[in-house]
Amino acid sequence: MNRQSPARLVVSIGDPAGIGPELIARLWTLRHSEAMPVFACVGSASLLQAAAARDGIDLPVARIADMAEAGGAFGDALPVIDLGDVPYRPGKPDAQGARLGLESLTRAVALAVSGEADGLVTAPIAKAELAKVGFAHPGQTEFVAEACGVGPDDAVMMLAGPSLRVVPVTVHVALARVPQLLTADLIHRRTAIAARALTRDFGIAAPRIAIAGLNPHAGEDGRMGDEDRAIIAPAAERLRADGFDVRGPLPADTMFHAAARAKYDLAVCMYHDQALIPLKALDFDQGVNVTLGLPIIRTSPDHGTAFDIAGAGQAHVGPMLAALRMAGECAQRRRGDAK
Amino acid sequence: MNRQSPARLVVSIGDPAGIGPELIARLWTLRHSEAMPVFACVGSASLLQAAAARDGIDLPVARIADMAEAGGAFGDALPVIDLGDVPYRPGKPDAQGARLGLESLTRAVALAVSGEADGLVTAPIAKAELAKVGFAHPGQTEFVAEACGVGPDDAVMMLAGPSLRVVPVTVHVALARVPQLLTADLIHRRTAIAARALTRDFGIAAPRIAIAGLNPHAGEDGRMGDEDRAIIAPAAERLRADGFDVRGPLPADTMFHAAARAKYDLAVCMYHDQALIPLKALDFDQGVNVTLGLPIIRTSPDHGTAFDIAGAGQAHVGPMLAALRMAGECAQRRRGDAK
Repeated sequence: MNRQSPARLVVSIGDPAGIGPELIARLWTLRHSEAMPVFACVGSASLLQAAAARDGIDLPVARIADMAEAGGAFGDALPVIDLGDVPYRPGKPDAQGARLGLESLTRAVALAVSGEADGLVTAPIAKAELAKVGFAHPGQTEFVAEACGVGPDDAVMMLAGPSLRVVPVTVHVALARVPQLLTADLIHRRTAIAARALTRDFGIAAPRIAIAGLNPHAGEDGRMGDEDRAIIAPAAERLRADGFDVRGPLPADTMFHAAARAKYDLAVCMYHDQALIPLKALDFDQGVNVTLGLPIIRTSPDHGTAFDIAGAGQAHVGPMLAALRMAGECAQRRRGDAK
Repeated sequence: MNRQSPARLVVSIGDPAGIGPELIARLWTLRHSEAMPVFACVGSASLLQAAAARDGIDLPVARIADMAEAGGAFGDALPVIDLGDVPYRPGKPDAQGARLGLESLTRAVALAVSGEADGLVTAPIAKAELAKVGFAHPGQTEFVAEACGVGPDDAVMMLAGPSLRVVPVTVHVALARVPQLLTADLIHRRTAIAARALTRDFGIAAPRIAIAGLNPHAGEDGRMGDEDRAIIAPAAERLRADGFDVRGPLPADTMFHAAARAKYDLAVCMYHDQALIPLKALDFDQGVNVTLGLPIIRTSPDHGTAFDIAGAGQAHVGPMLAALRMAGECAQRRRGDAK
């Protein structure tokens, strides 16, 4: 790896009927004003140009065969690893598009795993569409983890915004299942992975971690639910014994105001909304989804395909921009460490 | 009722070993600078003076026998309905103090119910201490509701801050019990009570109400839990049929950023932390607890007795001030309507 050159990222196109293509095109136009890391898109060059044109952008593309060409091309054109022509049909997902999205993801992950790319940013896919073309994973994160040889429990989702970083220990499950799914082992494992990643990829030497309770007021000594003292407290104790700087379980409702947030680098939450309500209340449109615990850097924007506004020029580029920048910063840090 | 005079409020002293007494004394000193409504405290005059002295305040008190005397006295002294001398022992709750708190609450509620006071503000009590002297209610709210002849399901807790108003449909219960406790009837009833109170006491002619889903992404059509479509959606439908301006169930994580909040006057949430995480993230130290659905106005600060800092001059007066102001505004509105 050339230690002098900047990090270069690979971006998967996502579902091409969503807002991914127009955002990728727009990101490239911001490469100078926003001090963007170098990136290449794996997808359909003609589709990207069609999406750009619809957004009023005359997009030059540079078809590349190898990530090594991306840096040289990036100033003048969007580097594309071209998977062939696919018609641009914004808002109208179909099997052809889903296949393009899946092939793009597969190739992009491989480029990151091989080290040809320094990091991966995934544009949003639609799980229901991908399932129709044989995708059997619950989401991109699980697919990426498997491709990296990492078990699903060891790939940890973190949402990071300017005000707050959160890790939900359980994610896309019914609220009623959360108490059954929580174990001290799961909380311990995910928190430890997240803490190590904050050091390795985010440069925080000794991350301060706040663990949320499950029940109101963290259960008030078992008066409102026993999980806080029977499951979460022992996990926190083990983490402290392992040398991590951990507080909790803390009452979740008083963890997220400014003075409370100043005391930690990461909030570990027990379920989806406990993590995402404060993140999106404080940092809406700026949250980046980072997968921790992988041998590669992987980020994605914290939004979906938005089929309803695809091709209408209304999509905000902010979340993709934040995802790209964060991947670039993490990749640069790993390259620095590798010196 | 004299329509010309301003509203006069009654304040219960709370647990006298907590931060209630010092806050009440300090509030009175702010009566001019903060354009405070007239209020009288039911409690121990000597204890209030001792708490004030510890806080560096030389507090004049006016012992009154009747709320009608409060307005004339308020400019020069804190009007007190004196229940007798009790020693001030900050941070050291005991039975004598708990009895004072309970008698204060009982008398203060009676003054509000009789109409002698235009509204009630309750300082924080400690449930565990009150239970020792025979208090059998889960909290002050249930006690106040019963004294007003209102069933516990019809007294609705709302937390209101500058950025957000929230009603949690379930409150102090283990998270695991929430899915079982939610019924369309309960959601319908509490939302309707809250909507009517927003009109009557907050002057919002047609309140716009957003109802949160229970599960991540409001369940994604039943893929993650069935409560959103089986319980919450029918409740929302019935509320709309009744003429209320109701949206939902909405994904809770995207309900609380500024643009989302601009679209509603009240968020109805399914459980404690779903409501209180965003409220406290956005409006920490400014949230007022308002009990809706009562024949009287009742507010309280959104904090506890804080025994650990009682008497140390560290308690923030903001929440009690906000509670007093909100009670005053609501009372003034009801008096206006009564003309």
